[in-house]
Amino acid sequence: MRFELTREFLSILRFKIAESDLLWIKENILELHFADIAEILDKLTSDEAKYIYFEMDEELQADVLMELEEDVRDRFLSSLSTKEIADQLENLDSDDAADILGELSDEKIQEVISQMEDDEAAEDIVDLLNYDEDTAGGLMQKEFIQARVDWPVNRCLVELRRQAEDVEKVYTIYVVDKLNKLVGVLSLKRLLFASPKSLISDLFQGKNIIYVKTSDSSEDVVKVMEKYDLVSVPVVDLQNKLVGRITLDDVVDVIKEEADKDFQLASGISERIESTFSVWRITKARIPWLFIAMLGGTLGAQVIAQFQGGITKVPALAFFIPLITAMGGNVGVQSSAIVVQSLAKGSGQFGSILQKLGKEAIVALVNGIILSAIIYGIAFYFENGTLGLVVSISLFTVIVFAALFGTLIPLVLNHYKIDPALATGPFVTTLNDIVGLFIYFTVGMLLYKM
Amino acid sequence: MRFELTREFLSILRFKIAESDLLWIKENILELHFADIAEILDKLTSDEAKYIYFEMDEELQADVLMELEEDVRDRFLSSLSTKEIADQLENLDSDDAADILGELSDEKIQEVISQMEDDEAAEDIVDLLNYDEDTAGGLMQKEFIQARVDWPVNRCLVELRRQAEDVEKVYTIYVVDKLNKLVGVLSLKRLLFASPKSLISDLFQGKNIIYVKTSDSSEDVVKVMEKYDLVSVPVVDLQNKLVGRITLDDVVDVIKEEADKDFQLASGISERIESTFSVWRITKARIPWLFIAMLGGTLGAQVIAQFQGGITKVPALAFFIPLITAMGGNVGVQSSAIVVQSLAKGSGQFGSILQKLGKEAIVALVNGIILSAIIYGIAFYFENGTLGLVVSISLFTVIVFAALFGTLIPLVLNHYKIDPALATGPFVTTLNDIVGLFIYFTVGMLLYKM
Repeated sequence: MRFELTREFLSILRFKIAESDLLWIKENILELHFADIAEILDKLTSDEAKYIYFEMDEELQADVLMELEEDVRDRFLSSLSTKEIADQLENLDSDDAADILGELSDEKIQEVISQMEDDEAAEDIVDLLNYDEDTAGGLMQKEFIQARVDWPVNRCLVELRRQAEDVEKVYTIYVVDKLNKLVGVLSLKRLLFASPKSLISDLFQGKNIIYVKTSDSSEDVVKVMEKYDLVSVPVVDLQNKLVGRITLDDVVDVIKEEADKDFQLASGISERIESTFSVWRITKARIPWLFIAMLGGTLGAQVIAQFQGGITKVPALAFFIPLITAMGGNVGVQSSAIVVQSLAKGSGQFGSILQKLGKEAIVALVNGIILSAIIYGIAFYFENGTLGLVVSISLFTVIVFAALFGTLIPLVLNHYKIDPALATGPFVTTLNDIVGLFIYFTVGMLLYKM
Repeated sequence: MRFELTREFLSILRFKIAESDLLWIKENILELHFADIAEILDKLTSDEAKYIYFEMDEELQADVLMELEEDVRDRFLSSLSTKEIADQLENLDSDDAADILGELSDEKIQEVISQMEDDEAAEDIVDLLNYDEDTAGGLMQKEFIQARVDWPVNRCLVELRRQAEDVEKVYTIYVVDKLNKLVGVLSLKRLLFASPKSLISDLFQGKNIIYVKTSDSSEDVVKVMEKYDLVSVPVVDLQNKLVGRITLDDVVDVIKEEADKDFQLASGISERIESTFSVWRITKARIPWLFIAMLGGTLGAQVIAQFQGGITKVPALAFFIPLITAMGGNVGVQSSAIVVQSLAKGSGQFGSILQKLGKEAIVALVNGIILSAIIYGIAFYFENGTLGLVVSISLFTVIVFAALFGTLIPLVLNHYKIDPALATGPFVTTLNDIVGLFIYFTVGMLLYKM
């Protein structure tokens, strides 16, 4: 059965911790899946979590540590001594250890590394720290299984058994030559059913091997693993030597982070933030966008001020200002959202920009005709037929313009290697507000013959 | 080396197809990775694609077929006879075959099924068609590897070799009892290094087995696989019998679709659409939101109409209408985006609503103070100190209200099991527009003593 964490369970547990009821904790907590234990520790105080954590065996500790929520883990680690941190790192996969270490100050990193007993593990971690977080090098782990192409299967099995101790999840064996250059892959399934005397060179697949370079961006890694349906991908250095592997579960995190970032950029938040972050950090990520919107609003005020005479004569013109700006904003956001997503999928590099614009224009015409017909009736009811005409003609024009801007801006941003998700946010809405107001009042002045 | 598709390569290929240069095609196309071949076929006409497709061997055909873009594949399949479709389905994994079949009419499904030669495969597919697309049953495949808990390793190897022929990617062996009930899992790595005479019951892991039920929703499957870091998860029926497995690559698609849907909902698009869809389908997904926005705009017009006297006396009040509505909209979208994401992560069910509201209120106060101080100066410059006060006081109030609405609405929607991403879109902006206008003009009337 799957474990479900309840408030009741938590209060019982708290009571048992206060009582130091180790037997109960062993039977009811330590027997659970590591992900469930982590979920429980997330809800406890640092002291309570520490009490349970140090009752677990090393392997379980490592698994639980990596499953904790980031801020809980940071708090937990900062309550440990450098020696204790060093001990924990030795049980982790190299990529996880490097990620955790990367969060500490340079000074503390040195201290922790010097306290590590396993020199090889320490070396791996130090090596990984050299890579940029957002590259294949920053994502990869040093734990993988490799076989030499000239080995027979039985030798391979002996060597693999030794290597496999360090590697938790084995999907594919990477085949290298004498110079440690990647020459192919071999599935565990194939090896399992091979005769002991056959050679790796007869079994392995050396055609169309998919790999990434340490310097490839994490987005490229995602694209490659998705395109080629891989659960793990080998990483090679500049000399084509095998140096690591990246597994799909690490890449799923990148995919989710990318989606979150796009969603937030489109919502006018400049940095990936979570609701647990500090007020100041949240404000810093949000206020720049509000400045842009305020600047836009000020320019909008300027536009309306130019047409002050119109409003004095026909105050009802002011009634429909929010309608015009809201419609321009919404249409623009819709159009840009579609473009942003098709760009994110990597499609469309062949589809011509004109084609996209053409389709958006048709959709905008259809929407524009339907909506401006309706608004004519509404505005007529508010004032008279002239206002009806002003609002419906300008609404139609605004919808078409907003759709074109909404399509063009992300394409242009993308061309200049700026994240197009930027466009779905305050950018497009602000621009459309200003253009919309200008169209609206110009049409108004013309039709009212002012 | 990774293959890069260029325009030049495409035109050469088209020329070679026209020339029926099979030798060139064999050497330059059929030797590529299936994902690359699919990318190429996506760009060709149906006839060109068919020409290349039927030069490939069955296994390659199946791989390429599943990698084609959805609309290309639909077009391609509709150009085949039912017999040809049946032949293609037999080479696919059961879940892929069921997905493809599910797109056809009931009549055509029956025809295709009756033309299939492999009865077992046909039965598997028919069975899968019974499940809802958005459940574990709809995601699972019938190809998996299972071992009986009472088998010795050498018997297991013999049986697995037979089973493994049908299963492309093997990650984990599922261990069942005599009644076919799932009792545990066994990693391939463990089996590889086990002595031939040991029993599966000594090797397998029977504690904390993670599985899903056929009726579980696909979102639950995603959550389980993410939480427990799985590359594949076994699926059991109501009687706990093993009936299928779901692999992480299928779930990655669900994750991406979910993220896309949220992004689009937040952008005011009611259905997951792609830029390749028809104008009518795109319009249908977009126009309901524009109606909501237009309705909001009309209500806004009503609010302003109530304060017509104020605008006649102080026309400059109209200048800042777009600023007030834009700021309310942007703040609301920012606040709701953060809540929507923390809800999507499944976090926060323990965190109290009051706590979230409190933090948002503080962020809003900070933003409100900074921005309304600046706008005071701007509005002063436009008209005078009174307008400065009106705009800055109402901007401050609007920011605070918008932040609270933006936080509350997604929480309320979520409570009533409605997708909270709805809130980040036109909903919150429209509501904030109306409330904002009301606040602005009320403050204006008060300060101008009208």
